[in-house]
Amino acid sequence: MFEKICIIGCGLIGSSILRDVYNSKISKSVTVFDNSREVIEIIKKENLCNNVSKDIQSAVKNSDLVIIAVPLSAYKEVLLSAKDSFKKDAIVTDTGSVKKEVNKIFKNLNLKDVYWLASHPIAGTEESGPNAGLKNLFQNRWTIICNDQNSKREKVEKLKKFWEFLGSKVKFMSIEDHDYILSLTSHLPHAVAYNIVLTAINTDEKFKDEIIKYSAGGLRDFTRIASSDPLMWKDIFIDNSENILKILEQFSKNIDDFKKAIIEKNGDKLLKMFSSTKIVRKEIIKAGQDVKSPDFGRKKN
Amino acid sequence: MFEKICIIGCGLIGSSILRDVYNSKISKSVTVFDNSREVIEIIKKENLCNNVSKDIQSAVKNSDLVIIAVPLSAYKEVLLSAKDSFKKDAIVTDTGSVKKEVNKIFKNLNLKDVYWLASHPIAGTEESGPNAGLKNLFQNRWTIICNDQNSKREKVEKLKKFWEFLGSKVKFMSIEDHDYILSLTSHLPHAVAYNIVLTAINTDEKFKDEIIKYSAGGLRDFTRIASSDPLMWKDIFIDNSENILKILEQFSKNIDDFKKAIIEKNGDKLLKMFSSTKIVRKEIIKAGQDVKSPDFGRKKN
Repeated sequence: MFEKICIIGCGLIGSSILRDVYNSKISKSVTVFDNSREVIEIIKKENLCNNVSKDIQSAVKNSDLVIIAVPLSAYKEVLLSAKDSFKKDAIVTDTGSVKKEVNKIFKNLNLKDVYWLASHPIAGTEESGPNAGLKNLFQNRWTIICNDQNSKREKVEKLKKFWEFLGSKVKFMSIEDHDYILSLTSHLPHAVAYNIVLTAINTDEKFKDEIIKYSAGGLRDFTRIASSDPLMWKDIFIDNSENILKILEQFSKNIDDFKKAIIEKNGDKLLKMFSSTKIVRKEIIKAGQDVKSPDFGRKKN
Repeated sequence: MFEKICIIGCGLIGSSILRDVYNSKISKSVTVFDNSREVIEIIKKENLCNNVSKDIQSAVKNSDLVIIAVPLSAYKEVLLSAKDSFKKDAIVTDTGSVKKEVNKIFKNLNLKDVYWLASHPIAGTEESGPNAGLKNLFQNRWTIICNDQNSKREKVEKLKKFWEFLGSKVKFMSIEDHDYILSLTSHLPHAVAYNIVLTAINTDEKFKDEIIKYSAGGLRDFTRIASSDPLMWKDIFIDNSENILKILEQFSKNIDDFKKAIIEKNGDKLLKMFSSTKIVRKEIIKAGQDVKSPDFGRKKN
């Protein structure tokens, strides 16, 4: 399907894509670039790819599919390095969790002759780095492709087929909808998880051991989310700040209502709140989005 | 070890205890009482116990261990019914998640000749009712027994052996410490989970389907916690209101700090916050409190 695929950034997501496409029928050749010497050493040691580019320019050169899998804050640098070396008509896509800001970067660079089409494979684990990558990570997961009425049908179809080759189910939506929906389904839960753990650890020193010991009552699983890659999440919260702030505002209002119900010992109101949340759970199960045990959208290592 | 054990309340926890003690060497006889006809029918149908008491009085009569496994708001009614029928020197314990308020009820009733000693087995699933009970639910779980310097050593030891017979590890602490620690490790996470889900469902109707579809990115697992037994959690939040309100206050302050960092696009501050939460995770793993996948302290059905 492709002559040459290049993957820029070989962390958890980039190296998982690499594992799926290297030596596969989807592309005659596959090359990777990562600016971390440590990452490159792992890729060589694990025999993940024997075609490691020495710079971004040679990586993107002649590639008809370029996949940017670096932290959001590194896109600009990557694109500035690559912009004069892209193959004409190449599809440039990414794997980032927020789209609006990086889309601006693309628009501002006004790249000629390449076709930018954002992707977001909703997959990952709590780990990061190329050692944490997995073959088939995207199997049965959703990948969102952000398109609009100006998108070229042929390019959209080609990118869709790429993700389907990796086993992913593909959904299309606008950049705005993507960033809003993800802020609710993923960014809010992560923001809150970090803050729960911060609240728990800023407690009296004398209870520290007990809090660790009884963390199985709920806290433990928030520490799991709250140990996701800090750099990635810093970028997500800053890039999607508008949606996140709006939703955190609503969340804080709900917490205040909840506090009020507790202060008033208003059992009926609490019961009503809890019953409405039970309904969503039923809808999720109905939609086939349930798993046997919670995994925060991540596959197990 | 006991002549007669009686279990008042046969939901998830009560019926799990029943599964472990019925026809075991820990007691010559075991009886249960539940005021729900539906629950009693399930117990009979599943052959969980053929000794079902018709009222609380006959259940506690001659029992040297009485286990109260009803919602917190039902303790008073149970104790008022039982108070003149207890066996002299019987141990009366419970399985509730908050201790201060129910302890007051016991103290106010001024029960003579029985020995009240609160227990909290930290175990459960997202399900409720006798069908959700499991044999060995308490295996390798912590049970907290609330004692103080006035507790009778002999009774404390006997209750400890009871929970150990069920496979549980036992830890002693004061009622105050119990309620504070659990408010951090369990009640705060649950309070927040309910509010995350409330925030997500109060969104624009047009995104409802998408939110369900992409709930795997984090939200889904909060809906799991937020579908725990509403009645049980209403009672917990009201009984432990003092601790929960104090901790929610701190949590809200942390959320405000977090919002401020996002508004200021203060990446360094965000990175610092996220790095400190990573440390707790390491401590939990070190303390052997980790599991392969998140389970919110619950065993899988």
